[in-house]
Amino acid sequence: MNPKIENRRAFLHQSAALSTAAAATGVFGLPELYANQPALPDDEKLGVALVGLGSLSTNQIAPALQKTKRCKLTAIVSGTPAKQEKWAKQYDLTPEHIYDYETFDKIAEDESVDIVYVVLPNGMHCEYTVRAAKAGKHVFCEKPMAISSVECRQMIDACRKAERLLGIGYRCQFEPHHLKCMELAKSKEFGEIKEIIAGFGFKIGDPKQWRLNKKLAGGGPLMDVGIYALQACRYLTGLEPDLITATETKTDPVKFAEVEETLAWTMKMGDVTCSCNTTYAFNGVNNFHAYCDNGNFGLEPAYGYGGIKGKSSKGPIEFEQVDHFAAELDHFAECITEGTELKVPGEEGLQDLLILEAIFKAAESGLAVKPESM
Amino acid sequence: MNPKIENRRAFLHQSAALSTAAAATGVFGLPELYANQPALPDDEKLGVALVGLGSLSTNQIAPALQKTKRCKLTAIVSGTPAKQEKWAKQYDLTPEHIYDYETFDKIAEDESVDIVYVVLPNGMHCEYTVRAAKAGKHVFCEKPMAISSVECRQMIDACRKAERLLGIGYRCQFEPHHLKCMELAKSKEFGEIKEIIAGFGFKIGDPKQWRLNKKLAGGGPLMDVGIYALQACRYLTGLEPDLITATETKTDPVKFAEVEETLAWTMKMGDVTCSCNTTYAFNGVNNFHAYCDNGNFGLEPAYGYGGIKGKSSKGPIEFEQVDHFAAELDHFAECITEGTELKVPGEEGLQDLLILEAIFKAAESGLAVKPESM
Repeated sequence: MNPKIENRRAFLHQSAALSTAAAATGVFGLPELYANQPALPDDEKLGVALVGLGSLSTNQIAPALQKTKRCKLTAIVSGTPAKQEKWAKQYDLTPEHIYDYETFDKIAEDESVDIVYVVLPNGMHCEYTVRAAKAGKHVFCEKPMAISSVECRQMIDACRKAERLLGIGYRCQFEPHHLKCMELAKSKEFGEIKEIIAGFGFKIGDPKQWRLNKKLAGGGPLMDVGIYALQACRYLTGLEPDLITATETKTDPVKFAEVEETLAWTMKMGDVTCSCNTTYAFNGVNNFHAYCDNGNFGLEPAYGYGGIKGKSSKGPIEFEQVDHFAAELDHFAECITEGTELKVPGEEGLQDLLILEAIFKAAESGLAVKPESM
Repeated sequence: MNPKIENRRAFLHQSAALSTAAAATGVFGLPELYANQPALPDDEKLGVALVGLGSLSTNQIAPALQKTKRCKLTAIVSGTPAKQEKWAKQYDLTPEHIYDYETFDKIAEDESVDIVYVVLPNGMHCEYTVRAAKAGKHVFCEKPMAISSVECRQMIDACRKAERLLGIGYRCQFEPHHLKCMELAKSKEFGEIKEIIAGFGFKIGDPKQWRLNKKLAGGGPLMDVGIYALQACRYLTGLEPDLITATETKTDPVKFAEVEETLAWTMKMGDVTCSCNTTYAFNGVNNFHAYCDNGNFGLEPAYGYGGIKGKSSKGPIEFEQVDHFAAELDHFAECITEGTELKVPGEEGLQDLLILEAIFKAAESGLAVKPESM
């Protein structure tokens, strides 16, 4: 183990990371795992290399890495010299920590980098995760983990062989409103969950973007945002779908020549009935609502980077908004330094891909489909 | 034609009936067809015989018939002497207008009765509609119209042969919030509807009630309350489902030995994706929301006898609550006296039964099902 990491393990507590403590203003107290932890000294933070400097990296992740308490931005990977230059200036990065896709593998020798964060189009997640693992780095990979379950398995294997952690960017699992909902579900605050209605969709702009390209995106809104609704059903119930039905609607076969446009799907998860929706064709739903034996709770809007609001039959679910990316990255850094259990390992991403594949199969075949198991 | 009716036609206006004008307090004005009409003199109102004096008749329909402007309660049909006696006193009915199920057919000679309103368990709708038509009466029948499309066709045929109107009790089609939503859909106030998410379910009590008996109810929550969500999808879009998928969950096979417990289904209706839910197992959804090209609108709660609330991306949809039963009965009476078009004829009930049958078939088979056409 990296001696820098070993050293830190000695004085860090065993608790989940959160960059900012979120104050509670609704009827429920903060989720239990929320602890306001002190920031590490800068030279003890883990170094993160960002691979892919698109809008998510630019507008969310890089700013989050200025707030993180256990990790910091130490390197970038981009094929665009102008971006390299801009980022180098903005984040004070020296040339030896700036890579392109040709030189990427040299990151193995860059001791400033502990974690490679893959923020590329979905179709490139597998390649760069495998290469990062081979370079001896821990890998944090954006969702969806990859464009197929086959790729997910390759990524898990590569990180396992390299003895490196693989985390998936399911930021909502670190967000206080979502965490409180998980707690409400688990503690049966409203009794058993009987039904979940969940969806996430938006009207996509530029028809030339990679999200509409099957090879790069792997699929359309289901892979991109519908996955949040699926995640909610899974982390609220703790169950997996037994049977899935799905209906696809396509109104613009030119724009959506390669990927689905609008999908509605149902999942039977044990005794819970789930009804989900996703789209790229209009500004649709952004929520989940769980109906239970003795009441209901949910979030709407649920999945944005901020502005999350919750309500329940007992009153509002309200906390201060936190930086989701800072929270998930600090948790990942903590798991590396503390050897604690990763909340969202590669297996979590693989499980979702197996379900997404079953949803696509159900939509294409018109048959109720049982997802393949891990 | 009944001379009483012919006489009335002379001085009644050609407009839809509403017992109480509903004031608008939201951002939208009253639905266009809303006109506050004067009540007819009592002796010019059409006479209604109520068949089946259960809680719906007792708590909703009989009180509504005290508010109606074009019809009034003139006879009752019940197999329970105690109920006959109570109702006779309460509504001042003389013995010659009180029937049981043996003497029912004598209603043919009862000139005080123009309309027979069938409020029996679903499994008895067909028999009493056919008998009422044979007795020469117009028939107003509660939803669901019957327990099968075969029965619906028999009912339509019987009324057609008897040259009598057959109306189905889809009260929401006479409620101002629902009517405004139909207008918003039709005028494309928010652009084309792309998706509807709708559901209605509640936790049913007494396990011995007829609603859980297949022979009397024909089915469970789908027939009883899910039908409201189906209706909303149909009257908002003006379209019929092309393809349906469905998932059933049963957690209490004793209580729900004969009928379904919880159903989630999807419908592709032209270019509109619909996602619907119903249950008898918990207090679930009571809403519809339509997501459009340029905004959204919906009602929640949507289907109760009162307390209906609407919202949209342009602001609230709010009107004074009206008596749904009075409104639909006055419309039915008007269609009889004025010869105007019935909004919800038997064909509307048949169409729903064909779709309900397809939903059941989809749930049982795990296949996407195209409903049979009328």
